Formats: sequence, structure tokens, C-alpha cells
Amino acid sequence: MTTRQTCLDRDAADPLGAVRDRFSLPDGVVYLDGNSLGALTHAAAARVREATERQWGRDLISSWNSHGWIRLPQQVGGKIARLIGAEADEVAAADSVSVNLFKLAAAAVRAQGPERLAVIIERGDFPTDLYILQGLAETMPEIDLRVVEPGGFERALDARTAVVLLSHVHYRSGEVRDMAAQSAAVRAAGAMSLWDLSHSAGVLDVDLNRDGADLAAGCGYKYLSGGPGAPAYLFVARRHQATLRNPLSGWMGHARPFDFVDEYEPAAGIGRWLCGTPPILSLSALDAALDAFDGVDMAQARAKAAALGDLFIGRIEARCGAHGLTLVGPRDAAARGGQVSFAHPQGWAVMQNLIARGVIGDFRRPDVIRFGFAPLYVRHVDVWDGVEILGDILDSESWRDERFQTVSAVT
Amino acid sequence: MTTRQTCLDRDAADPLGAVRDRFSLPDGVVYLDGNSLGALTHAAAARVREATERQWGRDLISSWNSHGWIRLPQQVGGKIARLIGAEADEVAAADSVSVNLFKLAAAAVRAQGPERLAVIIERGDFPTDLYILQGLAETMPEIDLRVVEPGGFERALDARTAVVLLSHVHYRSGEVRDMAAQSAAVRAAGAMSLWDLSHSAGVLDVDLNRDGADLAAGCGYKYLSGGPGAPAYLFVARRHQATLRNPLSGWMGHARPFDFVDEYEPAAGIGRWLCGTPPILSLSALDAALDAFDGVDMAQARAKAAALGDLFIGRIEARCGAHGLTLVGPRDAAARGGQVSFAHPQGWAVMQNLIARGVIGDFRRPDVIRFGFAPLYVRHVDVWDGVEILGDILDSESWRDERFQTVSAVT
Repeated sequence: MTTRQTCLDRDAADPLGAVRDRFSLPDGVVYLDGNSLGALTHAAAARVREATERQWGRDLISSWNSHGWIRLPQQVGGKIARLIGAEADEVAAADSVSVNLFKLAAAAVRAQGPERLAVIIERGDFPTDLYILQGLAETMPEIDLRVVEPGGFERALDARTAVVLLSHVHYRSGEVRDMAAQSAAVRAAGAMSLWDLSHSAGVLDVDLNRDGADLAAGCGYKYLSGGPGAPAYLFVARRHQATLRNPLSGWMGHARPFDFVDEYEPAAGIGRWLCGTPPILSLSALDAALDAFDGVDMAQARAKAAALGDLFIGRIEARCGAHGLTLVGPRDAAARGGQVSFAHPQGWAVMQNLIARGVIGDFRRPDVIRFGFAPLYVRHVDVWDGVEILGDILDSESWRDERFQTVSAVT
Repeated sequence: MTTRQTCLDRDAADPLGAVRDRFSLPDGVVYLDGNSLGALTHAAAARVREATERQWGRDLISSWNSHGWIRLPQQVGGKIARLIGAEADEVAAADSVSVNLFKLAAAAVRAQGPERLAVIIERGDFPTDLYILQGLAETMPEIDLRVVEPGGFERALDARTAVVLLSHVHYRSGEVRDMAAQSAAVRAAGAMSLWDLSHSAGVLDVDLNRDGADLAAGCGYKYLSGGPGAPAYLFVARRHQATLRNPLSGWMGHARPFDFVDEYEPAAGIGRWLCGTPPILSLSALDAALDAFDGVDMAQARAKAAALGDLFIGRIEARCGAHGLTLVGPRDAAARGGQVSFAHPQGWAVMQNLIARGVIGDFRRPDVIRFGFAPLYVRHVDVWDGVEILGDILDSESWRDERFQTVSAVT
């Protein structure tokens, strides 16, 4: 039988337990939103101060060389590569997820010639992924954009398919795709798979090369804890690096960016996927934050996130079962990413009430409350305490208080 | 006759003299590279710490609302607008200059239909501007990219021209274009002008609306002092806002970004030019940095930069005239931006020697040493002292020392 004490015991035995000390978490908060904005590490805080006050403030322009700013996109890419089963020279930090998806999808279409102009995505996928492909199809009207039903991309594959954009973990349900099988299906049709890792990198044992992925992008600010709006990253499998061209051919992707010549010539490797000058303060935070993964086995991280999610589901059903919460997404941990969602008719107010009591999750319209279990710093006892507070809120119906009813701009 | 004392006297009488106190400049350094990386302000340093440690670290995800992260792109845009003669709702901070030029050029082409597919730029312009248009023309092969001779864009205008990309101030020579006349010429051809303000905003009294500009973009890290790789900004004249569409249609540009619907619908105003989630730490630095311009009259700022440039040219010619320095770009301050360049056959070594002696400028291949006169913090006495040191270096030929001969990756 699970008790608060058994949760404490599990935390004491957790091989990742000490990793939590790398994070600067506020007292009295149960933070179950690391899937939306990862927590600050001590190293990132120190590094931002260093990059601002010493590197920018004192060493000024010379820091591009002396503090290695110019190499940061590749350095950060190399650190992320280990977490997603890629080689260091297959990943670079750059721009935002949205911009990177545009680059990669455009390049995949252009590389495959006029016989393959179809781009596939499933309805209900992460909105910006859909939006970016819509904008791409306006920019390149020859594209045949196929927005198919959820679970339907394989039926839409054909000899005219250029690229398929797939979320590894669904942002709402937490459902995880079988990357190996789905990459193989795309490849069998002669097309390229483009994976959005935003909700899986840093919590699952992603293995792009083992699973035959062609292209990928993901964000730096969720499980990677790189800071608000941290720079994103992209992956291009080595076998595609020589042929794909970045449509956003800015100076940082040039083979010799400091020659200042008039003709664009792409860098030989992953560097060609850079575009403009990266935001160094934010990129420095991400670089330092990634060191929280030092020594962390991602299979162990995934197992811990699964155990926390299982505990959460079990506790919700035991403690809050009578209160109209409906599990959204898979019950089976193997089919799930690092988050668990429940629908509740008053989901917004319930989440506002939870936040007011120090349990931070988030809300997705129309009625989904979502909780993430960042394995580097969430404890079993946090899950216990969070569910107790949720149970208390539902028992007392305190969410009916008018201060929890106001819907704000940002959810 | 100019002496070091007359320089000190001019500094004492400088109406912008006190603004220098807003900056955190290292002792013993003459910083003449604010045209490449602007100096740190005390406010920016404090704000980055606040955004990192308190907003991200303590208040976590709630900061999107409680600390106004979600409104930062427009808030920063509003501050930049005053410096470039735009309305607050015509400017937003977003992405990099390169990405913004892609967005605006693509949108201008798409908006004008199949009869206008020519995009014009002059050879020798800022390299990333050329590169971005080359990538755009690969992405949209219907584009007729015309790279014309310097000074030749007007002869290339015709009824098929969609957009002309023009640097307001040339990155190498410092030459400033007549924005009113050139915007009018573009408009007379029925095309749109797209201005790169990277080397003019924050030092000249740019007035986009007075001068009839259609579109513009610029960087945040030069004269705006927003920090290394600070987010860039873009301007869309209000008369074009309803018709132009952002090809990089990410979630932040959606009319209702938190509805998470499948269909992209652009925000009504300047907000549609946002794409992905912005790097908040870097954007916060820029936001705070812009307050250094509070109370600064940009005509006065331009006059001061002109006076410093004139002083620099005069002193170079008086003190270093025998040493083979050749002025690159206009002698007339009215035709010049905030920087002054000289060619020297050993420009690289001379600049390395200068830097080693605490006078920071930069080098542009093959032989140009470039100095910027950021009017908010460069003093007349800095110019005096910098030229004295340069004169000493040239007199003694100390640049011949082998440690100044090694060419590094970044210039």
C-alpha cells in the first residue's frame, strides 16, 4: 500500500535523487510543469550572470572568441545529441522550434524534386507545427499539404510524399509514437520523417539514429530546462547533410562567415542550419542547464518519469476518484511521455486553485489539466503532496471561488 | 586648435554626457565597437539577474503572465519604434535580422502577385542580406533575384519589381542612404522598400514614416546595446499590415495563440510577425537596455556621433597622416552613419595591437579597420586617447610583433 512514507522511501532510494540538488527550486512549491518550462539550475543562474556581467560587460566584443560564443550553437548541439541518440555533429542549437521546422520541411521538399511535393501532418498535432506547414505551403504553393486524421498518416503516404511531420510525444495526451516503426513506414514510401521532440527530449530515451529518423527539431525550455524561450535545436542525419540546403541561409550558416563575400556557400556540416546571430545570454543558459544531465542515464530518467506518472494516476484514482476526473491519453506508461493529463469540466478553475496552493501544472483548452514529471527534480513525495492538495480542492469545491474563474490571456 | 583639454571641455558640455553613467564600461578601455556589440547598461545587468533568478527561478511558468513575458515582443517593439520614427504598433521584436528579412521579403513578393517577382539588392551589401535573398530565391524559384552593382538599384527598378532590400548605413563604408528619396523611387516603381537598419538605428535620427519606408528590420545588439545576439526587430508600415502575411507562421503570431486550434489565423496587427517562443532572457536584456535612450533626442545623438567621427578623422589625419591610413567612406558627416573606417595594408595586425592596448575597434577584410562612435557612451576624450595610441603604434611599428599577426576565426 502506498503512503507518504513509502514515497519518501522511494525518493531516498532513487538513483537520480541527488540530481535534484542541481536545481534551484522555490520552497513550498510542487512543480509539475517542467514539461512546459523546466526549472532553473544553479549552474545556469551562475552562467547567465557570468555571460552578462563578465563576458558582455567586461570583455565585450572579444568574447566571441575568448569565451567561445561563436562555437556555442555546435557545443550545445553536442550536449543535446547525447540525449536524443544522435552524433554530436548532427545537432545544432538555433532559432525556435517553429523556425527550425520550416527550415527542415522546406529543405526536404526542395531536395526531393518536383515528383514529391506532398507534406503530411496529423490534425490535432502541436498547433505551431500545423501553422508552420500552412505558412510553408503558402510560400511554396507547389506543396500539397495533407492534414490527415489523427493516426492516419500512414494511409496518406504515397510516391508523391516528401516529408511527414510527427510529434514524438503528443503535447496534450502525452501519447508516444513508435519512432522506429513510423520512421520505417515513412522511409518505405521514399519520404523523410521529421520529428518534433519538444515533449520527449530530456524525459524519454530518444534514439534518433537507432530508430532511423531523418530529421528532427525540439525546444530547449521544457525538459531540457534551458530557460524561458530558450533556443531550439535541430537534427539532420549525417546521410542527408550534404544534400539538404537551409532555406534560411543566413550568415552564421556560411562556410566562411567572416569572409564577407557576396555569394552564399553553405557550411559543410550541421553548421549550415544556423541562420542569424544567436541570442547568447539565452543560449548560455541552455548550455549550462544541459550539464544537469551529466551522468544521467536517459533510460533511467524515462523509468523514473514513468513511475511518477503511474503513481500520479494511481493516487488520483484512489484519492480523487469520485470527482469527475477523466484520464486523457495512455494509462500504460510505455505508451506515454513524461506528462499525464486529466479532463475535468472545470479544469481551468481547478488548475488556478492548485496553483494558488503551490501545485503548478498547466491547462490546455477546453478542459485538460496537465502535469509533467521531470525526472531530474520531481520526487515521489511531490506527487503524493500534489494529489492530496488536489483531492482537498475537489472535496471542498474551493475551485468555485470567483478568483479562480477568471480566464487570463496565457494558460 | 584641438587638444586633449578641449576634448575634455567638450565632454563636460555634452548634453548626452550624463547618459554614459547608465553604462557599465570596463576601466581603461576605449570602446569604439558599439557598432558591433553595444556596451552593457546597469539596468540590463540587473534585469537579466531578475529575469533569471526571480522570474524564471522562483515564479517559474507563471511569469508569462505575472512578469509580462508574453507582451515583451510588442513592448520592446514600442521602445524601438520611437528611435526609428515608427508608431509603437508598427514594430515588434522577433528572431534575428536574417530571419526577419526572409519573412518580409517573402511576404512582399507573395502580396504583389505573379506580375511582380523581382527582388533587388546591391552587390557588396551586408552579406547576410544577400545570402537570405539567395535562399529565398531557392525556396521560391519564381523569384527573379537581381543583384546589381553598388548604387545601381534605381536603374534595375521596373514594373516587375516586388521589393528592394537596402541597407540604411553600409556596414563597411558607413555611407548612409537617402531614405526618403530612395523609398520614393521604389514606390514610384510600384514596389516596396525593405530597409536594414542594423547599422543606423540607435545612432541616426531614423524616421521611417516621414521617409515613406514600407518595411524594415534591424538588430538589437549594436547601437541598441541589447546584448550579444540580442533579438532583432521588424517594422511593417500600418498601411501594409492587413495584407502582408508572415511565411513563418508560428504560434506566437496567431490571432488566438492559446486556443490551440488547427488552423493558422494571423493576428490583426504587428503581432502576426512573431513566430516561435522568444528567448526571454535575451529579450529582457534588450528591453532594459533600451531605457538608456530615455530622454535622448536622436537628432542630438546623431549630431554627437557626427562630431566624434569628425574629430576622429581630423585627429587621425593630424596624428597618423604619414602612416598609410586611407579613409574608407564619406568624409562628410551628413553622408555617414555612426562609424568611420580606414584601410591600412596591415589592418589586421594594427587592430590586434590596438585591442591589446585597450582600444577596441574591429576589422573587416581585406584591410579595413572600423571604429564606431556610440553617442550614448563614447566621449571626445576617448577619441583623443584612441588616436594617440594608434599613432604610437604606427610610429613604433609595434604591430609587426608576431603576436599581432595571427589571424583568428572571428574578426
